[in-house]
Amino acid sequence: MENKVVAPAENGLMKKIVSHAKEYGFVFPSSEIYDGLQAVYDYGQMGVELKNNIKIVWYKAMTQLNDNIVGIDASIFMHPLTWKASGHIDGFSDPMIDNKDSKKRYRADVLVEERAAQMEAAGKKDEADALVKKLARLLEADDLKGVQDLITNEKITCPVSGTSNWTEVRQFNLMFSTQVGSVAEDSSTIYLRPETAQGIFVNFLNVQKSGRMKIPFGIAQIGKAFRNEIVARQFTFRMREFEQMEMQFFIRPGTEMEWYNKWKESRLNWHKAIGLPAEKLKFHDHEKLAHYANAAVDIEFEFPFGFKEMEGIHSRTDFDLANHQELSKKKQQYFDNDIDPVTGKAFGNYVPFVVETSVGADRCFLAVLCNAYTEETTVEQTEEGEKVKERVYLKLHPTLAPIKAAILPITKKDGLPEKAMEIYNELKYDIKVTYEDKDSIGKRYTRNDLIGTPFCIAVDHQTLEDNTVTIRHRDTTLQERVPISELRLKIRKETSWRTILEKV
Amino acid sequence: MENKVVAPAENGLMKKIVSHAKEYGFVFPSSEIYDGLQAVYDYGQMGVELKNNIKIVWYKAMTQLNDNIVGIDASIFMHPLTWKASGHIDGFSDPMIDNKDSKKRYRADVLVEERAAQMEAAGKKDEADALVKKLARLLEADDLKGVQDLITNEKITCPVSGTSNWTEVRQFNLMFSTQVGSVAEDSSTIYLRPETAQGIFVNFLNVQKSGRMKIPFGIAQIGKAFRNEIVARQFTFRMREFEQMEMQFFIRPGTEMEWYNKWKESRLNWHKAIGLPAEKLKFHDHEKLAHYANAAVDIEFEFPFGFKEMEGIHSRTDFDLANHQELSKKKQQYFDNDIDPVTGKAFGNYVPFVVETSVGADRCFLAVLCNAYTEETTVEQTEEGEKVKERVYLKLHPTLAPIKAAILPITKKDGLPEKAMEIYNELKYDIKVTYEDKDSIGKRYTRNDLIGTPFCIAVDHQTLEDNTVTIRHRDTTLQERVPISELRLKIRKETSWRTILEKV
Repeated sequence: MENKVVAPAENGLMKKIVSHAKEYGFVFPSSEIYDGLQAVYDYGQMGVELKNNIKIVWYKAMTQLNDNIVGIDASIFMHPLTWKASGHIDGFSDPMIDNKDSKKRYRADVLVEERAAQMEAAGKKDEADALVKKLARLLEADDLKGVQDLITNEKITCPVSGTSNWTEVRQFNLMFSTQVGSVAEDSSTIYLRPETAQGIFVNFLNVQKSGRMKIPFGIAQIGKAFRNEIVARQFTFRMREFEQMEMQFFIRPGTEMEWYNKWKESRLNWHKAIGLPAEKLKFHDHEKLAHYANAAVDIEFEFPFGFKEMEGIHSRTDFDLANHQELSKKKQQYFDNDIDPVTGKAFGNYVPFVVETSVGADRCFLAVLCNAYTEETTVEQTEEGEKVKERVYLKLHPTLAPIKAAILPITKKDGLPEKAMEIYNELKYDIKVTYEDKDSIGKRYTRNDLIGTPFCIAVDHQTLEDNTVTIRHRDTTLQERVPISELRLKIRKETSWRTILEKV
Repeated sequence: MENKVVAPAENGLMKKIVSHAKEYGFVFPSSEIYDGLQAVYDYGQMGVELKNNIKIVWYKAMTQLNDNIVGIDASIFMHPLTWKASGHIDGFSDPMIDNKDSKKRYRADVLVEERAAQMEAAGKKDEADALVKKLARLLEADDLKGVQDLITNEKITCPVSGTSNWTEVRQFNLMFSTQVGSVAEDSSTIYLRPETAQGIFVNFLNVQKSGRMKIPFGIAQIGKAFRNEIVARQFTFRMREFEQMEMQFFIRPGTEMEWYNKWKESRLNWHKAIGLPAEKLKFHDHEKLAHYANAAVDIEFEFPFGFKEMEGIHSRTDFDLANHQELSKKKQQYFDNDIDPVTGKAFGNYVPFVVETSVGADRCFLAVLCNAYTEETTVEQTEEGEKVKERVYLKLHPTLAPIKAAILPITKKDGLPEKAMEIYNELKYDIKVTYEDKDSIGKRYTRNDLIGTPFCIAVDHQTLEDNTVTIRHRDTTLQERVPISELRLKIRKETSWRTILEKV
């Protein structure tokens, strides 16, 4: 069990971002003093603020902007029958193969995909395409023997032992299990939830009834989920412990495509509103649909390692509720007293359909961080000629920035620290601000650039005379002089949730 | 595995609160459609808002009010050596005994305590006290055989089988374990963290260095923890999956009592600031200290089932950091360049001491809910004589209330819904508001009382004429007329985080 903070070197940029994330307190490898735990990370003092801000603005966009969407917070532990109904006990697995010499285990499909990539690199694109297609057919047919034959026929060897002394291909369930209950005969195997969605489905009627919700309505939730990923990599992109932000929208059967399209658009807008540029976002329609979906699309973001899924929007039909109804023997129905224009009667009882939006909080965090990381070179004309300046800063949306403003006395004497502390103490109740008096003002600007603080407030001798300060803007490095009395309103205005929410 | 939403009937009040919590969307039994999962609960649409508000105001009090406290968000999965260092692998267990006839398992110490309670109920207080003292001595000496002899000598029988056909008493570890890693030789047993504190300790140097923190400083964290409790009961008071709000304050050895006392006071103030009355809060000093502490106190709240621990403040010395240092072989030290007045030299390198404040988010939620639950009887003088009115409402601090204001058109016609929706759409970006137009205005007031909404905004015909509305106050039921233009500022002022933070 070890963890390298350095991601696979898709390119140098990703390496720099991973290293920046650690150096400035955004992301640490988990349990690093014990050499880490693979595919598990901790959010540091800056990371937790950025991630919380992303979570809050998602939650507000869902539950404050829509009067028909409410939140819940379901537990990670759920009754095991939940995962029977959802299909995870039977179907949530990857095909695995072991090499008997090296004792290493691999995802069988990944071995074949890597062979195809080698072929393509060697100029044999047609052969590679044929291999990938054949693999897809076999996986779809759940033909593990066929996958194994593919590995044998292609003479794929273990990268460690170099031999082709393989076991057979077997399915490996990705759910983590544990034993709950201390009373001997009552001890049961339960699972750490592999998705948060089911916590919403099993509470559908509790929320609908206690909240007097009328269809269409949604339930939103942020929470941890766990998957025993075999190929866990790309920093926080694919982790064994991760956080989802999911919303299940309950609708009348037959209206799913209308809502699916509405949520596609709405969710893309949200990503743009938090500052991700349109050209780094794209839809990717699923050709092969999951067993529960009749339409599915990903919102992909262009990470340094390529366009990858950040969010999924799925038309899940009544798959989940119908299965829970069957297994629990409890009706999961809604009585719709709206009038059907065709029959002239109320729509009546039905199991609602669901359109789901599901975004990875950690992936969204990574997208925001990657997008914000900026290396800037500026050329200044000085009397001694051109001067090249380099600077790194995080161009975060001000609302998402971990620290909104740093209050900085330019020297540690003449009463400036006291004056600066006064300002800090007034602002801190409403705004996330810091006070710093160590090192030169330039160094402090640089440090705040590196963590993405949009405003640096310098307190100088003039401040003592006229109660004004300078605000230094992160992105332009330009400064302006403003009265202390205007500070709070000015910073709040530019960092309020509203600045994002109005654009969703 | 089954879960009764009804708590042990310590008294009728608790029953009412549990039932209220379910009926109005605060707390649902987990996986209820599958008859629940013991000692696990889900927060419904109102509960999630109340709990989030408690978490936010704790986090802000820690990290915004103190310029030397920062947050982190460490993962639930940690390297297993973490729990070796913390003592949980060896020591985090309860003494268990099985009855061979009923196959039921019990906590041995609880069986003895229950016998003592029976004695006391039968008027034999001295005998009961002696038994409890003897049990305490045996547990302290880790004398399991002695505990077993006590059960035998006292002729304690199984409540189910009625026999005394017992196994021996054994220790049962309370940590949940699971297998991580798919690569065969790399698969390891890891644990779901039984406390969040260790996630802070293993990140001590990462945070200190990347955040350039100077002692004294603190690290705050909110997160889930898991314990396989044998006796899990009292609603959300003792759950198998629960949430902690912890802050570890790193200090110079020798200063621990000063900080311990400061944090005792500060934390008590916080509980008062969120609206818990002083007379329902008390300190309870630990007589028997945990292995890691040299001073410890609980803040207890008077729940309907008695004064019980809600928060612990512990002087943990250097127990955790020193153990991590020993096991990881990585120095967990801080260089203190402040001058020691005794030696005239810098304090230099040391392993910091820690004072911890640890509050159960779910317990705090339960305390706030229990405290808010109000049954009110008022007698009105009318022309027909006295009229007795009964009402139930949640007297929540306005800042903690799930919904800050409900916008209510008094009728569904004459353009009032449109006007009300206009107000809703203006306020929703900044304030958690709802729009409701179903049922009579009286019924809507009642519903909002039941979920603790502090302000009901009624939109009537006068609104169309002069752009004023009535605000109906939850606690007094009094109404006042205010211009729409003043609504936002008025509601924000009374529900801002600042209203609480200024009192901490």
